[in-house]
Amino acid sequence: MVGATEAAIQAGNVVRGTTSPNPPVGCALVDASGELIATGATSPAGGPHAEVNALREAGDRARGATAVVTLEPCNHTGRTGPCSHALTQAGVARVVYLTADPFEPAAGGAEHLRDRGVEVVFQPERVAALQPWLRSVRNNRPSVTLKFASTLDGFTAAVDGSSKWITGEKARELVHQDRATRDAIIVGTGTAIADNPSLTARYPDGSTRPVQPRRVVVGTRNVPEGNLTRLGFEQYATPEEALQALWETGGRDVLVEGGPALAASFLELDAVDAVQAYIAPALLGDGRGVLNRSIADTIAHARRFRTTCVRPVGNDVFLEMEKDVYGSR
Amino acid sequence: MVGATEAAIQAGNVVRGTTSPNPPVGCALVDASGELIATGATSPAGGPHAEVNALREAGDRARGATAVVTLEPCNHTGRTGPCSHALTQAGVARVVYLTADPFEPAAGGAEHLRDRGVEVVFQPERVAALQPWLRSVRNNRPSVTLKFASTLDGFTAAVDGSSKWITGEKARELVHQDRATRDAIIVGTGTAIADNPSLTARYPDGSTRPVQPRRVVVGTRNVPEGNLTRLGFEQYATPEEALQALWETGGRDVLVEGGPALAASFLELDAVDAVQAYIAPALLGDGRGVLNRSIADTIAHARRFRTTCVRPVGNDVFLEMEKDVYGSR
Ligand SMILES: NC(=O)c1ccc[n+]([C@@H]2O[C@H](COP(=O)([O-])OP(=O)(O)OC[C@H]3O[C@@H](n4cnc5c(N)ncnc54)[C@H](OP(=O)(O)O)[C@@H]3O)[C@@H](O)[C@H]2O)c1
Ligand SMILES: NC(=O)c1ccc[n+]([C@@H]2O[C@H](COP(=O)([O-])OP(=O)(O)OC[C@H]3O[C@@H](n4cnc5c(N)ncnc54)[C@H](OP(=O)(O)O)[C@@H]3O)[C@@H](O)[C@H]2O)c1
Repeated sequence: MVGATEAAIQAGNVVRGTTSPNPPVGCALVDASGELIATGATSPAGGPHAEVNALREAGDRARGATAVVTLEPCNHTGRTGPCSHALTQAGVARVVYLTADPFEPAAGGAEHLRDRGVEVVFQPERVAALQPWLRSVRNNRPSVTLKFASTLDGFTAAVDGSSKWITGEKARELVHQDRATRDAIIVGTGTAIADNPSLTARYPDGSTRPVQPRRVVVGTRNVPEGNLTRLGFEQYATPEEALQALWETGGRDVLVEGGPALAASFLELDAVDAVQAYIAPALLGDGRGVLNRSIADTIAHARRFRTTCVRPVGNDVFLEMEKDVYGSR
Repeated sequence: MVGATEAAIQAGNVVRGTTSPNPPVGCALVDASGELIATGATSPAGGPHAEVNALREAGDRARGATAVVTLEPCNHTGRTGPCSHALTQAGVARVVYLTADPFEPAAGGAEHLRDRGVEVVFQPERVAALQPWLRSVRNNRPSVTLKFASTLDGFTAAVDGSSKWITGEKARELVHQDRATRDAIIVGTGTAIADNPSLTARYPDGSTRPVQPRRVVVGTRNVPEGNLTRLGFEQYATPEEALQALWETGGRDVLVEGGPALAASFLELDAVDAVQAYIAPALLGDGRGVLNRSIADTIAHARRFRTTCVRPVGNDVFLEMEKDVYGSR
């Protein structure tokens, strides 16, 4: 059963960045002997959900099978039919789900299945791919991840402004990989004007990845001719307006890449759900900080998170932290 | 054989902080079937080395045994007889060592053993406990580890100066555990005056650990009556004088605990061999930095290290980095 759980989680991971406003769900079907029959994941909005994709791949072999789904099967008819019905119609004998559906209109999939004689098991597990979507439906705004790269003593550039390259190649590759899993990348006008960024997800050779996030600039200043005007971008006057507009147009998982003024603004709004830091094993002593101003007058008011991931990335270190309790501080 | 290697490494770990100027070496003796016969570690200066302690514990069972030693057995008669002779006299059949002895007068232990028919295997492995000592004999000064606790954005205190507690209990416990493995703890007069520190290694309940580092203050200002004057401490006018005096009196492995002015001075002297950072998953935006001034005018001149350890400690993160190439930058 561990194999099927992992297969379902993996299937969901692959479609991150392509499913919003739907969650990137994964599903694995296994037969009575535990052999993997099929996997499926959420298609882009309007397309079938993970369970339906897996059932289609399995065909008749789904009869009597166990379906492992990262999220409780939905029970409502939106743009697609309810997954709980598709599972009973295909004759699935057992459904294991890892996360309860927090979205009211869809909830109740487990009950529908049980009523029709399907064995339903809730096997709670933290599915990383679903965290941003879960947070977004809880908060009615996109999940916000603040990302930065800095030295061990917290500088994103030296006193002369130089910052190429603080972190190494592997860290930069991970950043681009991560961008492809997001609905939007947000920067402030300061960064848009100073850096002429592309805000695209690229491969190490510079070529563009197949899936691209929306490019978003926050602030009132004009973005001059450059990569963003060439590639196209959206601009909003304030962080609040950006979040509102993104939410209304299906954005569920967005990345704030700076600069220090915009990052501080998102933190002050209490709108940062997760932080991803790429830390270089280097010391500068002074330079440009991660944030451009104090966001806490005393240590007890520091914005605190919960460490969710720590690992080396090349010679750098990747740290991920999440807000402790959503909606409260 | 893996079991014996680990037993030798573990035996060496236990005596860290008690052996200087000698290295904290560990030795494990196993019989032909691989069964562990005895372990030994370096005694305090003037006492027997690791091999001799293990041989004493093993008695007659050492005949025909394999000795795994974290450092190449010494071949010179210092305050104790050469270990290579003790090993041949005890009839040890095979010696496996994990680190070559870099200390000229003692080197040659492997050769002596081979000449007397002992099978000698050099099985290179990075023995963490030996790194400070190895660096010290290479540089003719104590190995210096810079330690600090900070937020993810590099602050050791908030804008109002408050800093209790940036990191959690587990991190503080580790700091005290680590202090007990060092020959000396060094702080600047700024810290000695502002914080009234004890610089002792304590247990979580506040009681004193059995092994204590030397307490060292650097600077010319007077340390007022307090914990340090009560417990006793050494004072040196400059970092260079402190390192020289510690080296000459057997100090091989010292910890610089700040403050930011002294830390920057040690870095500018290029005298920091390793950095240990306890990072809290918290953001402040502004406050007191890890260093009190820039130590690199541009990003290419940042002090760079190699990441050697990354792990969660409670809700905090422990990072260890070492200088890439000793003596050169
Ligand atoms: N190493 C890294 O990880 C990294 C990443 C990104 C950027 N950077 C660096 O950061 C620098 C730019 O940073 P920056 O601080 O000058 O600019 P910024 O943070 O990119 O943008 C600041 C602008 O965002 C808008 N903004 C921010 N908060 C707002 C709020 N609460 N309400 C409304 N608008 C808000 C304002 O735009 P208007 O003034 O236009 O209204 C403000 O001037 C560049 O040099 C770049 O290289 C480094
Ligand atoms: N969170 C943490 O991890 C942490 C750790 C330690 C300290 N702290 C904080 O740091 C603050 C004190 O820091 P600080 O920067 O004011 O003082 P400091 O770094 O502790 O001491 C500075 C003093 O060290 C001496 N010194 C430094 N470099 C020297 C050099 N190259 N040559 C000769 N002498 C040198 C000088 O002493 P003289 O002027 O006497 O000659 C200098 O004034 C305290 O508030 C303390 O709480 C925080």
